[in-house]
Amino acid sequence: MTNQAISRFPVPDLAELPDDIRERIEGVQEKSGFVPNVFVALAHRPDEFRAFFAYHDALMDKESGLTKAEREMIVVATSSANECQYCVVAHGAILRIRAKNPLIADQIAANYRKADITPRQKAMLDFALLVSQEAQSVDEEDFDDLREHGFSDEDIWDIGGIAAFFGLSNRMANLMSLRPNDEFYALGR
Amino acid sequence: MTNQAISRFPVPDLAELPDDIRERIEGVQEKSGFVPNVFVALAHRPDEFRAFFAYHDALMDKESGLTKAEREMIVVATSSANECQYCVVAHGAILRIRAKNPLIADQIAANYRKADITPRQKAMLDFALLVSQEAQSVDEEDFDDLREHGFSDEDIWDIGGIAAFFGLSNRMANLMSLRPNDEFYALGR
Amino acid sequence: MTNQAISRFPVPDLAELPDDIRERIEGVQEKSGFVPNVFVALAHRPDEFRAFFAYHDALMDKESGLTKAEREMIVVATSSANECQYCVVAHGAILRIRAKNPLIADQIAANYRKADITPRQKAMLDFALLVSQEAQSVDEEDFDDLREHGFSDEDIWDIGGIAAFFGLSNRMANLMSLRPNDEFYALGR
Amino acid sequence: MTNQAISRFPVPDLAELPDDIRERIEGVQEKSGFVPNVFVALAHRPDEFRAFFAYHDALMDKESGLTKAEREMIVVATSSANECQYCVVAHGAILRIRAKNPLIADQIAANYRKADITPRQKAMLDFALLVSQEAQSVDEEDFDDLREHGFSDEDIWDIGGIAAFFGLSNRMANLMSLRPNDEFYALGR
Amino acid sequence: MTNQAISRFPVPDLAELPDDIRERIEGVQEKSGFVPNVFVALAHRPDEFRAFFAYHDALMDKESGLTKAEREMIVVATSSANECQYCVVAHGAILRIRAKNPLIADQIAANYRKADITPRQKAMLDFALLVSQEAQSVDEEDFDDLREHGFSDEDIWDIGGIAAFFGLSNRMANLMSLRPNDEFYALGR
Amino acid sequence: MTNQAISRFPVPDLAELPDDIRERIEGVQEKSGFVPNVFVALAHRPDEFRAFFAYHDALMDKESGLTKAEREMIVVATSSANECQYCVVAHGAILRIRAKNPLIADQIAANYRKADITPRQKAMLDFALLVSQEAQSVDEEDFDDLREHGFSDEDIWDIGGIAAFFGLSNRMANLMSLRPNDEFYALGR
Repeated sequence: MTNQAISRFPVPDLAELPDDIRERIEGVQEKSGFVPNVFVALAHRPDEFRAFFAYHDALMDKESGLTKAEREMIVVATSSANECQYCVVAHGAILRIRAKNPLIADQIAANYRKADITPRQKAMLDFALLVSQEAQSVDEEDFDDLREHGFSDEDIWDIGGIAAFFGLSNRMANLMSLRPNDEFYALGR
Repeated sequence: MTNQAISRFPVPDLAELPDDIRERIEGVQEKSGFVPNVFVALAHRPDEFRAFFAYHDALMDKESGLTKAEREMIVVATSSANECQYCVVAHGAILRIRAKNPLIADQIAANYRKADITPRQKAMLDFALLVSQEAQSVDEEDFDDLREHGFSDEDIWDIGGIAAFFGLSNRMANLMSLRPNDEFYALGR
Repeated sequence: MTNQAISRFPVPDLAELPDDIRERIEGVQEKSGFVPNVFVALAHRPDEFRAFFAYHDALMDKESGLTKAEREMIVVATSSANECQYCVVAHGAILRIRAKNPLIADQIAANYRKADITPRQKAMLDFALLVSQEAQSVDEEDFDDLREHGFSDEDIWDIGGIAAFFGLSNRMANLMSLRPNDEFYALGR
Repeated sequence: MTNQAISRFPVPDLAELPDDIRERIEGVQEKSGFVPNVFVALAHRPDEFRAFFAYHDALMDKESGLTKAEREMIVVATSSANECQYCVVAHGAILRIRAKNPLIADQIAANYRKADITPRQKAMLDFALLVSQEAQSVDEEDFDDLREHGFSDEDIWDIGGIAAFFGLSNRMANLMSLRPNDEFYALGR
Repeated sequence: MTNQAISRFPVPDLAELPDDIRERIEGVQEKSGFVPNVFVALAHRPDEFRAFFAYHDALMDKESGLTKAEREMIVVATSSANECQYCVVAHGAILRIRAKNPLIADQIAANYRKADITPRQKAMLDFALLVSQEAQSVDEEDFDDLREHGFSDEDIWDIGGIAAFFGLSNRMANLMSLRPNDEFYALGR
Repeated sequence: MTNQAISRFPVPDLAELPDDIRERIEGVQEKSGFVPNVFVALAHRPDEFRAFFAYHDALMDKESGLTKAEREMIVVATSSANECQYCVVAHGAILRIRAKNPLIADQIAANYRKADITPRQKAMLDFALLVSQEAQSVDEEDFDDLREHGFSDEDIWDIGGIAAFFGLSNRMANLMSLRPNDEFYALGR
């Protein structure tokens, strides 16, 4: 069996962490019933941990023209293109819960073009994939396509911003070989 | 919501199908409790149906140096690379059942390099992906790598043959836009 | 000189084959004057042999809105993209004969966009290449493009089905390193 | 002439920004003599601004086994692969200054394999490009290669972390079509 | 039927050409029995014509550690990778003649890895393809591989130079949509 | 530090070169104040040297619907896509001088889509990149796009011809690992 370690790098004990980080982790544990591995693995670098989750929250928790489920769709679709096992499994679970739909995450991870989504959501994911895979060629026509589907420019920032942020997240998870917690697989099914 | 049809092509009624095909489908239904959509969608072309499942059975049901779970690993890994939603979802379910492991299919679909598999299975999937994505460059060194992991030449044919057959299957499913049955998602979890 | 074996795998003697397979091979020999290597190489696995040729015949020999020459165009174009030496050489010969055109196979193998074909045939090959190389992105607009060229949905299945089947065939030939018979090169010139 | 706007999105006036952000920007202006456009463009989203620069500083300003010039090499090499005009131009300037070498940035941007760098730095950039372009295939052998060049595991995190963070940064800059300040081009030459 | 013009650009009459060009063309006609279309199509630009053929002759007609057949192998293999119909067809004919082998051109065009060539020629073509498709990553190890097969550095220049020159030639032929003369297809079979 | 040799191949002394080549090089030195390394490196092969510069001059020095600056834009954009350090650095300098613009070369090298160029120049570079990276798919629609921007067919030949010629030049420079002269970096800034 291949290595089942959480990360290729040292994973700190909760007790040795700075208070703010330990408290955030304990809060998550209380809410979710377990500590997602990304929290303990990234806590190896407290400053990066703080910046990472601040960035995450700024995009994923704020008011937006995108629903929280739509934001998770972007995470799952781009993380699948980047073959990020942790993000596909963990955010697939969150997407199932947010969308109250047990099928949607697997559909999007395998081929978002054939998922049970609206044409507007399809356009959103087309753009997210473009930012994720070939951001250098984003142009005004791509913005216009989204505007025709009713997205505001702030929405477009949100779509592109989430795709960009998980561009970072996916690479960190693949660098660490971050292991998804077993708990995620069955959530929301 | 996008179209939720089973296929872009006409889907026949069971009653109008040739006896041998109808009987095979009824047999599957009896065993599984539902009819996987690939059966009814492909039945639109009876001769192709017969050849397709004969080829499938010749590889997937026979004696082999690969376990049935290992063969399903090949299907899931290569179908994910080809973004075949039907095959990832349907064979993911079969893999969970064959391997008696609720996590393995999602792990392999997202990034087989980080799945809970043995080094021998990792080598098997490396080769399967090579046949699936770049068969023109398969050479003797690739065979030698597999032999060092204990695979016989007949095993190598099996690995490559399954990758090749699902090369056909994935393309047909994407051509038809074949929809996975809802039942598959929860099987074996 | 590199190895000139027919296949990387064992090649059976005609005498040791099951009757139905031996008879099919003898029939081909009688008609063509030689036995194409794919027949003896695949006969190493009788069940796969039977399914393979049943699938082949179901697509290539049946009534269709595509002429037999057009079907061979699809084979040559997609096999060239997959760098399948056996299929390009063998089906190039068949295409020259079917089309009664000694130039067409080499033209299509090198760059089908510049071959002496009609705009309808160009659209057919564009779609075949899409199914062959990137089936996951086939969408309704691709179907509409073909319909505008007068293709029925059954014709579209045929185009995609041939591209998909030779997706299997090309991978098997590259796995086996299947050698084209010398006889093919001069046929139909 | 194409549009010379700083960003596709609204750019805030300094006066209307939250105090902490305005003060950071004023600090940069004092030190550099101008305000790099990334500061004002990202300030459109104060929370993302704060997280972005916190992440940046955590990687680029801390103690590390990599010199500051080496860290900028990683930025220039990966940003060039991502065709991020802003990052290549702005961090090219910083690299020239940090390395006290007027040629190094253009060399690395064009083809880092031929730049005036040490074999150790070449190995560092090979790994950074791997994380940047294909993080899903990072494996233990890649870590071993770096260890042989004397990099510690903490150094490897730094290399991969910088490549990952600029994966985010490059995508944001291309999303915004962020324009490099004219001042950068001549700095350090 | 698609356009069968020789070129997308104007093709001059022999009579209106400068003497040196007309004489070269007449010399080719005398020797070959027909005028390959590349001569009349490029003659639209006399200065480019002169430079093109001077470069061609400097590589293809001189003394070299590579036989003339081996040089044509490089042309066919790289032109096939670039999907240059003219060069594959025309130089395929020349290769058959130079190598006195009616099969070799089609074998190399389809998949040079499986052609009837020596391991030394295989290494030569591997390097030619590297220069043709990804010259930016050529490094000292590639040179060493060729030296181990007995190639001198001058031979390596020849291999890379031919791959580079046909990089130009293939692009010009595809720009012009240069049509191969019908005569080429049957030559040397 | 990596090797700082001018070329992987022998570099001749000026004194030992044929008169015409030595005189050309002395002329360049007189005009520029230094001898660009491409002259001495290519002089290792006098016949290729003569043909190379004859081809260069036929495209770059003649009358054309493209300004000399526009022609250098094509060189910089396509050489950057090919990661040719010598051509990006050397022709970047020439572009700055020809365009009397110290920013334009770095802008185009990093991402030409965001450079300070006109829509007509953007279309010119789109086509140049197509010829450079995927000439096999150039079709009539691409010509029509350029004609709508006011380019004549002779202009289109010039654009494609320059992209094709630097396809050769970039590959030779990467084969030789040709080092840009230090003088280029600061020219025209």
